[in-house]
Amino acid sequence: MVFMHDTSRERPANGASGWDAAREGAELYRIVAELYPICRSITGNGLRESLRLLQQHAPLSLHEVPSGTQVFDWVVPKEWNIRDAYIKDAKGGKVVDFRKSNLHVVNYSIPVRKTVALSELRPHLFTLPGSPDWIPYRTSYYKETWGFCLSHRQLESLADAEYEVCIESTLEPGHLTYGELRIQGATDAEVLISSHCCHPSLCNDNLSGMAVAARLAQHLSGRSLRYSYRFVWIPGTIGSITWLALNEARLPKIKHGLVLSCVGDPGRFTYKRSRRGNAEIDRAVEHVLKHSGREFQLLDFTPHGYDERQYCSPGINLPVGCFMRTPNGGYPQYHTSADDLSLVKPSSMAESLQQILQIITALEENESYVNLNPKCEPQLGRRGLYHPVGGTKNAGAEEAMLWVLNLSDGGHSLLDIATRSGLPFAVLSAAADQLENAGLLARAGGAR
Amino acid sequence: MVFMHDTSRERPANGASGWDAAREGAELYRIVAELYPICRSITGNGLRESLRLLQQHAPLSLHEVPSGTQVFDWVVPKEWNIRDAYIKDAKGGKVVDFRKSNLHVVNYSIPVRKTVALSELRPHLFTLPGSPDWIPYRTSYYKETWGFCLSHRQLESLADAEYEVCIESTLEPGHLTYGELRIQGATDAEVLISSHCCHPSLCNDNLSGMAVAARLAQHLSGRSLRYSYRFVWIPGTIGSITWLALNEARLPKIKHGLVLSCVGDPGRFTYKRSRRGNAEIDRAVEHVLKHSGREFQLLDFTPHGYDERQYCSPGINLPVGCFMRTPNGGYPQYHTSADDLSLVKPSSMAESLQQILQIITALEENESYVNLNPKCEPQLGRRGLYHPVGGTKNAGAEEAMLWVLNLSDGGHSLLDIATRSGLPFAVLSAAADQLENAGLLARAGGAR
Amino acid sequence: MVFMHDTSRERPANGASGWDAAREGAELYRIVAELYPICRSITGNGLRESLRLLQQHAPLSLHEVPSGTQVFDWVVPKEWNIRDAYIKDAKGGKVVDFRKSNLHVVNYSIPVRKTVALSELRPHLFTLPGSPDWIPYRTSYYKETWGFCLSHRQLESLADAEYEVCIESTLEPGHLTYGELRIQGATDAEVLISSHCCHPSLCNDNLSGMAVAARLAQHLSGRSLRYSYRFVWIPGTIGSITWLALNEARLPKIKHGLVLSCVGDPGRFTYKRSRRGNAEIDRAVEHVLKHSGREFQLLDFTPHGYDERQYCSPGINLPVGCFMRTPNGGYPQYHTSADDLSLVKPSSMAESLQQILQIITALEENESYVNLNPKCEPQLGRRGLYHPVGGTKNAGAEEAMLWVLNLSDGGHSLLDIATRSGLPFAVLSAAADQLENAGLLARAGGAR
Repeated sequence: MVFMHDTSRERPANGASGWDAAREGAELYRIVAELYPICRSITGNGLRESLRLLQQHAPLSLHEVPSGTQVFDWVVPKEWNIRDAYIKDAKGGKVVDFRKSNLHVVNYSIPVRKTVALSELRPHLFTLPGSPDWIPYRTSYYKETWGFCLSHRQLESLADAEYEVCIESTLEPGHLTYGELRIQGATDAEVLISSHCCHPSLCNDNLSGMAVAARLAQHLSGRSLRYSYRFVWIPGTIGSITWLALNEARLPKIKHGLVLSCVGDPGRFTYKRSRRGNAEIDRAVEHVLKHSGREFQLLDFTPHGYDERQYCSPGINLPVGCFMRTPNGGYPQYHTSADDLSLVKPSSMAESLQQILQIITALEENESYVNLNPKCEPQLGRRGLYHPVGGTKNAGAEEAMLWVLNLSDGGHSLLDIATRSGLPFAVLSAAADQLENAGLLARAGGAR
Repeated sequence: MVFMHDTSRERPANGASGWDAAREGAELYRIVAELYPICRSITGNGLRESLRLLQQHAPLSLHEVPSGTQVFDWVVPKEWNIRDAYIKDAKGGKVVDFRKSNLHVVNYSIPVRKTVALSELRPHLFTLPGSPDWIPYRTSYYKETWGFCLSHRQLESLADAEYEVCIESTLEPGHLTYGELRIQGATDAEVLISSHCCHPSLCNDNLSGMAVAARLAQHLSGRSLRYSYRFVWIPGTIGSITWLALNEARLPKIKHGLVLSCVGDPGRFTYKRSRRGNAEIDRAVEHVLKHSGREFQLLDFTPHGYDERQYCSPGINLPVGCFMRTPNGGYPQYHTSADDLSLVKPSSMAESLQQILQIITALEENESYVNLNPKCEPQLGRRGLYHPVGGTKNAGAEEAMLWVLNLSDGGHSLLDIATRSGLPFAVLSAAADQLENAGLLARAGGAR
Repeated sequence: MVFMHDTSRERPANGASGWDAAREGAELYRIVAELYPICRSITGNGLRESLRLLQQHAPLSLHEVPSGTQVFDWVVPKEWNIRDAYIKDAKGGKVVDFRKSNLHVVNYSIPVRKTVALSELRPHLFTLPGSPDWIPYRTSYYKETWGFCLSHRQLESLADAEYEVCIESTLEPGHLTYGELRIQGATDAEVLISSHCCHPSLCNDNLSGMAVAARLAQHLSGRSLRYSYRFVWIPGTIGSITWLALNEARLPKIKHGLVLSCVGDPGRFTYKRSRRGNAEIDRAVEHVLKHSGREFQLLDFTPHGYDERQYCSPGINLPVGCFMRTPNGGYPQYHTSADDLSLVKPSSMAESLQQILQIITALEENESYVNLNPKCEPQLGRRGLYHPVGGTKNAGAEEAMLWVLNLSDGGHSLLDIATRSGLPFAVLSAAADQLENAGLLARAGGAR
């Protein structure tokens, strides 16, 4: 893990940077495990409690937006809270119990308490016949109804009898809560990191993203940074719409952004490009993944997925991509009770965080330089930058210097040079430092 | 087959649109069979008779252009007519007989009547040694000569004796005839449909194209259309040059065009792009063929082929491509007597017409829209356009609406969105209708 | 080999152009063999002698630039000369002898004469353990030191004893020498041909390039040419930097250029594109190689290699590519004593020269034309340019005429048309001549 330091620009050697993957993974996993039991939704106390818990890991602040607030085409909904829910059979035994899994209740179910025949109950029950041991995750935010989710085996074991149904929920005017954290850098230009935090007991989607964002904020805190960083932990869809509506004036400051989601499973990395398709963030992520030595896939933007849908709507159109491992819908456990603590791995989350840190390094260090000696090559040997004896091997650093010199005509950033040359960004960035120190290179925009 | 109706924009469900492929194929085949025996050329009574016969199927009008008319670099040639032709052996037996096949005479042969030795006759005889049972098709429009085409077996059976040669033709000042039909749409912007009609007894090239064009005109007649449609049935090369020279002032109205040829054989579809290469017609055809579920090939423009040579000459440069099944020269029967009624299939012609109708639908419905709620997604659920329960499946239509909303920024037409999303045009067009009805979308150019 | 003649533009038929590959190969090989024994460097008498020897083959002139001359960021170094060098064992036997191979001395070694133990000598000895019979080629131009290169077997046979070391060299103020030849064409626009001439006894790199450049100059001399041609034989790196620094005002005249190197081995052709990547020279070489019927590879520009590094530095940025067979570093004998007279082949050098001549033909004849009859095709048949009987075969020339007519809209050069059509440049150029003679085509820039 490599960072830019404004003053010294010293660069820790690989492996010497203090990156402890095992420790980082354990920390990330601990956060996920803490958050796992809480019943979250797009509003309510579970969401609030989760964000407060995250405050132990990163100094985010909580924001409360009243129900009924108009946010673009939407209205902040009533606040939903739930105390208990169950289905009891004739003998009083709980055949479905919210306390065993908060997925058992259709999220945003209105209160209900009655005794009904199975035939009447049946339309309110959701199962996964193809995965008969798993409980599905269902929501009904904008249509007032109620329902239960259960494993298909549970359903099959239900006798054709009467059942007592109870959902002790409230749906009342309240607030939508979101978390926000801003780290000031040398400039007000911002990098946005967004993760949704509305899912109940689901680990990969998206406790992993919430935890990685929190740790990322910790790693960036106190660093000397070029960009300012804005983190938001928001309920999916309505949360990003709310944040965008309330912060519209700030949007021009956002230069790059990532939605983090599903970053805890052991699958290959997935990056979904921003709507712009070739934004600097898109090229930075592509570069880092290509040099990661790991499997990855790049997807073009589509208007379905996570909150990049809102960040990349045509009237907003921010350069925000989505960083994932296995994407939503791409793994069988997606939106089921099997997206649990066994699906996410400490090492996978640590690796995700490491890649994101390298992406941020590329953004931080991506400068355009001007070759101050553009007519023919400068004599590097005289400056101690080149091997003295022709024919000896001394490849990487010199090759990087030649590339930087050749393409530093004001029209190519370091990331462009990395793409064109095939060399890793860090090697080119180090070469640029050496050449700048030797007086052969200047930042295109002048010194900072 | 799907059409736009200006007033209701109602869309017949698939299969419910009254498309009867078997009936359509039979009708097309009947036209081809009627036209087959006639000896056509680039001028003359056979051409005239063929166009009159087509008038029974579509209300085209005949145009007569006098011989000697200057048309760009060319001059309309003398009119050629033929009554009879044969080669008789010493016993008076016809060894080659025009009445058995009009291919036997080199098209545009001048009159001849004499008795000659085989050795003198030989340079006037054309055969296909590699396909010894087939008669080749030869023409000599612009060099006054005469000749006979015969099967190689016929040639081999000729004794080394004297033969009576007779061609009862006339080549005299007259007219070049072409057929034209214009269907007025809501605007004067035109789609040009061109098929050559100068070949004698050859079915795929191009009775199939003539017939499909006639039936296409019938299908479009009486419909509510955005574009006006101009159909021309013209002799190859000199006919399109003549039409272009006489109609130069009308050319700016032509927004899209197709040359139809060889659309009756059972081979895969072939589309040869216009000279522009990325015109709307090129993208419309490519889209329709990609979603046709059938094999096809796309070819870049080349300056040899059919009348697209003229429509795409540099000083004309209309966006006109060529729609075929197996292209000219791509099947062994091409330009031989084997391009007969057994080569073309009713089902193949009906299928070709169906694809062309879908291409026209894409042109008709290809609008650019503006998302009226461009900041974040609009709340589709509130408008009944979205499933209420998260996690249930309801894919296609919603996906199409999200794509249309996301890319309707004035810079993308529906065809662009179809290309970008991979969704069928018809699904996106239906989604645009729904969104327009819901007040979420407006046509970029204002209402029509 | 095909050339343009301004007045007649007559074109010798293939094979009738007087190209005698065997004779040409023998001549090229003779030049290489003459130059082979000489000890060249980036300055000095060996370089001077080599250029004078080349004067027997092409009328180049020698230029002398004094040591100490500032050339951009560099300074012309002291002149290096060497009379003799050896390592003697205790018995006075020469175990390493400069007179047997001038590669034995590290090029630019300072004078030394002393007796040293093997252990002290060892850091000054260079071998190739992986190719134990070959002597490596080493230089130390800009760090004053001395050394010997020898085969690894020689090194292994050295007893652990004392050795007398002698290098009779001088490193004193003098001159850097380069050769230059300019052939005036119809215009002052120039094509630059550059080959480095600083390597001692190495044949492929770059005696082959020096010889091919000299013969190329001979072939162009006395021809009627559109472009002027500037040939430089310069020491690598410092030579091109020196030439560029002293000729900066002339650089805008250079429209195309090639560095010639490693053109004598039997490997496939390699072309390394200019920094611009899509310059006319890049497209001309690509076209010729694609139609050469021989294996080849195309490489994008990189800032390591030969003098294209300097020609393509960002402040110079000339459209200069590098024409090679097997590129530097791509063959095991590279920069070793095995790059000798057995590695280069007469036929390979003749073939390289032939390709380069065809590239120059493409540059010479690459015009943009305007179709004077752009509306529909002109009637070629009337002008004797088209077969009279439809259906007969007469493919190539007519196809070429149709392509030239169709794309001669002022926006396409013949090379563009060659790329688009896939036809050989020479066929299109001949078609353009025919059409120009028929009054159907005019040069876009007016007659010359």
